Amino acid sequence: MTTKILLNCDMGESFGHWKMGDDELVMEWVDMANIACGFHASDPHVMSRTIKLAQHYNTQIGAHPGYQDLIGFGRRSIAHTPAEISELISYQVGALEALCRFHGTSIKYVKPHGALYNDMMDNLEVFEAIADAVSDFQVPLMILSSLDNQRYLDIADKHDLPLLFEAFADRAYTSNGRLAARTLSGSVYNHSDDIYNQVMQLMNYGSVTTIDGERLHLEADTICVHGDNPQSIALIKKINQELHSNTMNK
Amino acid sequence: MTTKILLNCDMGESFGHWKMGDDELVMEWVDMANIACGFHASDPHVMSRTIKLAQHYNTQIGAHPGYQDLIGFGRRSIAHTPAEISELISYQVGALEALCRFHGTSIKYVKPHGALYNDMMDNLEVFEAIADAVSDFQVPLMILSSLDNQRYLDIADKHDLPLLFEAFADRAYTSNGRLAARTLSGSVYNHSDDIYNQVMQLMNYGSVTTIDGERLHLEADTICVHGDNPQSIALIKKINQELHSNTMNK
Amino acid sequence: MTTKILLNCDMGESFGHWKMGDDELVMEWVDMANIACGFHASDPHVMSRTIKLAQHYNTQIGAHPGYQDLIGFGRRSIAHTPAEISELISYQVGALEALCRFHGTSIKYVKPHGALYNDMMDNLEVFEAIADAVSDFQVPLMILSSLDNQRYLDIADKHDLPLLFEAFADRAYTSNGRLAARTLSGSVYNHSDDIYNQVMQLMNYGSVTTIDGERLHLEADTICVHGDNPQSIALIKKINQELHSNTMNK
Amino acid sequence: MTTKILLNCDMGESFGHWKMGDDELVMEWVDMANIACGFHASDPHVMSRTIKLAQHYNTQIGAHPGYQDLIGFGRRSIAHTPAEISELISYQVGALEALCRFHGTSIKYVKPHGALYNDMMDNLEVFEAIADAVSDFQVPLMILSSLDNQRYLDIADKHDLPLLFEAFADRAYTSNGRLAARTLSGSVYNHSDDIYNQVMQLMNYGSVTTIDGERLHLEADTICVHGDNPQSIALIKKINQELHSNTMNK
Repeated sequence: MTTKILLNCDMGESFGHWKMGDDELVMEWVDMANIACGFHASDPHVMSRTIKLAQHYNTQIGAHPGYQDLIGFGRRSIAHTPAEISELISYQVGALEALCRFHGTSIKYVKPHGALYNDMMDNLEVFEAIADAVSDFQVPLMILSSLDNQRYLDIADKHDLPLLFEAFADRAYTSNGRLAARTLSGSVYNHSDDIYNQVMQLMNYGSVTTIDGERLHLEADTICVHGDNPQSIALIKKINQELHSNTMNK
Repeated sequence: MTTKILLNCDMGESFGHWKMGDDELVMEWVDMANIACGFHASDPHVMSRTIKLAQHYNTQIGAHPGYQDLIGFGRRSIAHTPAEISELISYQVGALEALCRFHGTSIKYVKPHGALYNDMMDNLEVFEAIADAVSDFQVPLMILSSLDNQRYLDIADKHDLPLLFEAFADRAYTSNGRLAARTLSGSVYNHSDDIYNQVMQLMNYGSVTTIDGERLHLEADTICVHGDNPQSIALIKKINQELHSNTMNK
Repeated sequence: MTTKILLNCDMGESFGHWKMGDDELVMEWVDMANIACGFHASDPHVMSRTIKLAQHYNTQIGAHPGYQDLIGFGRRSIAHTPAEISELISYQVGALEALCRFHGTSIKYVKPHGALYNDMMDNLEVFEAIADAVSDFQVPLMILSSLDNQRYLDIADKHDLPLLFEAFADRAYTSNGRLAARTLSGSVYNHSDDIYNQVMQLMNYGSVTTIDGERLHLEADTICVHGDNPQSIALIKKINQELHSNTMNK
Repeated sequence: MTTKILLNCDMGESFGHWKMGDDELVMEWVDMANIACGFHASDPHVMSRTIKLAQHYNTQIGAHPGYQDLIGFGRRSIAHTPAEISELISYQVGALEALCRFHGTSIKYVKPHGALYNDMMDNLEVFEAIADAVSDFQVPLMILSSLDNQRYLDIADKHDLPLLFEAFADRAYTSNGRLAARTLSGSVYNHSDDIYNQVMQLMNYGSVTTIDGERLHLEADTICVHGDNPQSIALIKKINQELHSNTMNK
């Protein structure tokens, strides 16, 4: 069996004169570009540039909204009411949607960023506020795949919202299907081989091997990769070629 | 003759915990609410609240994008390339459009704010960058009515963009159909009678009397009013009733 | 016995074109003005204006630094390392100190704002990071008076930092000497009489009556008051006159 | 003749998670570090880190305040009253001064950044507003050396403010002693040899050769260099060694 797992990657994280990431080098090798929307990173001009780059490589564009926290890069949780969560999602995704239309394309999904992503997984009230806002855009919401997928599906169904489940290429899993805490030794893979192997196992067997050596089935529509340095970009290229070897190139 | 001139007013200019304007008192008496989009004023929550208020009174919602300058309230010109102008318009109007859709309504027009509005009137390159971005939203762009309206119409036509022309209730005009500089004595009307008379002349005769006493024909689809204090709100209410006396209430 | 309890009040909370508070009316009646420093409210121009107002009424100036969160007005906790806490205190207090010197005056104390104030009281590591930064300015740090004052004094002593203890005029206390949670009925006094009585008891007897009716000794160098409306300003004026009736006016 | 011309370089221009410049590699080879103060770049944590780096290499610390414009990196002019200019200088320099004191060091000079620097040179009212604010810090103000130095000295003297005059290593001069406009061909030197030669001529003869081939005397206490890439850093190192060959290393 070979499933059509797509690679997604955070993009458009530059801000004004500050550059972050090697979008120009990575874009060709990923299927889905999560584009920051100006609250934790990016700005209208960076968003515009990243949209055009995604168009050039025929990469799907996703909105990547976050908390309004440039200094903390959206990685710090900030208290919001559910209504405020919906509003910040609508605002940011709407901004990217309009810029996409300006360039003759459209968004294909939404994936929250950083602390907002974590809060969404930890708090169903936050999840529902996001689901409510995203459903208006008529694109799926990407969330972390776990053993609890059905719980999120039940809520999403109420909003007629399709979900995409993502797995992580470079993170170890615990037996309950969650990511092992970063503070745990071995929780983040640094070796290309470990990352490559986890992706291949997800692709070929739909499973991961947990930090305790257990084999765990894990649904995954897409795998999140990071391309911050030449080595990781080379790995993404290799994974991309493997994923698409039996299929048409993206 | 009684034309259907509509009243437009800046709204949603609060920011976080800071309140500006008496939107709750003014909304009922204007036809068009220019809602700030978070760059010079407002934020996703204030925008949301203002949209709901406009819905309650059946007031048309317009996007009111500006330069990214909270401290200066968008009243200071900031250099941008034409591409950047288009991008900041798309971003802000897209954000408001999505929030409107979230609340089951939609934007009906776009009116740039402050220094961006002035730069648009002074620089046709800025005007065209704005026109280019607004045309995607399939709503008209509101600009200052003057003797040069045809120049702007010619450019707007290239983008299939309808224009709305606005006149000012409380500003004196010069003989070339421009607003008299604020530094000029008598350029800003402080008396309710002067404001009321200018609106009535626009409504009944389609003209203004310039600062030099000349009578000048001036096309006006809408008149901009300000409601910052009880007196001005009372005046807006009176003008509103006059405008709608022969027609259905809005 | 009549202790010299001083009244402190948050001031300079306007931002750009947005006005908050009636500083012009309150300043005369308080002894200490906690001036926001641009991260949760205020800006260099508002700070400058507020400094001049404080000078006019001979009111002591204190720095009122907070988390960098304009939208949330500094009322939302944001994760920081202790080093970052020290840095944001130094930055903001240094900025106000320089503006004071520019106007020929100086800061007399520091009082953290909102969520940063609460985090300081709840987490001794945050308290010590603040103490470390404030000690450089050679002015006291104002904190919440409670039954635990000695714990904070021990740490402050290590940094040669004097502390000022403040009580609240309009908040009910629990028997452990902490403020009753806002969610508890009766925790916030709305009646002028209740507020006035708590201040008089603090002034004359150095105690408060807890929400359970218990009498509790509470050290208080200063009492925090709020002047948001005509009624509260009248009360502040009355309290001020009471406090200073036996002494020289401030 | 060998004058003690010092090299100054912009530093601390990172912001939150965004890195700019190779401060770690450049700091050793320059004499003066112009540290951004959080309005156009930097933040309290980046400032702190840059201060410690300067201390490590015994590099003088200067405050590098700019307009409040992160997106535009302080390179766009924004209208301010003279009072507002003084206030934004006091605020930013005061913030850096306090952070320096926190780390046991102090600022040695102030050099405005980008559009604020240009506005200071073009508008004596802006210059005087800056001079007024800087004089409180009892350190010199660094400005562009030109044939008009006396005009600025006259105003600075009124404020008891010493000036430092800087020349540029990589910019061509016109015969009136101003920088040739960037739009002019040949106005910015890209070859290391041209940059090196201009520095040596300034050091050995106190002059530059204008874009028209004329020799022009130019007072220079310091030369501004940029270290954005390995090549430019190598050049700075070479210039540094030349400047200090006859003197003690800094």
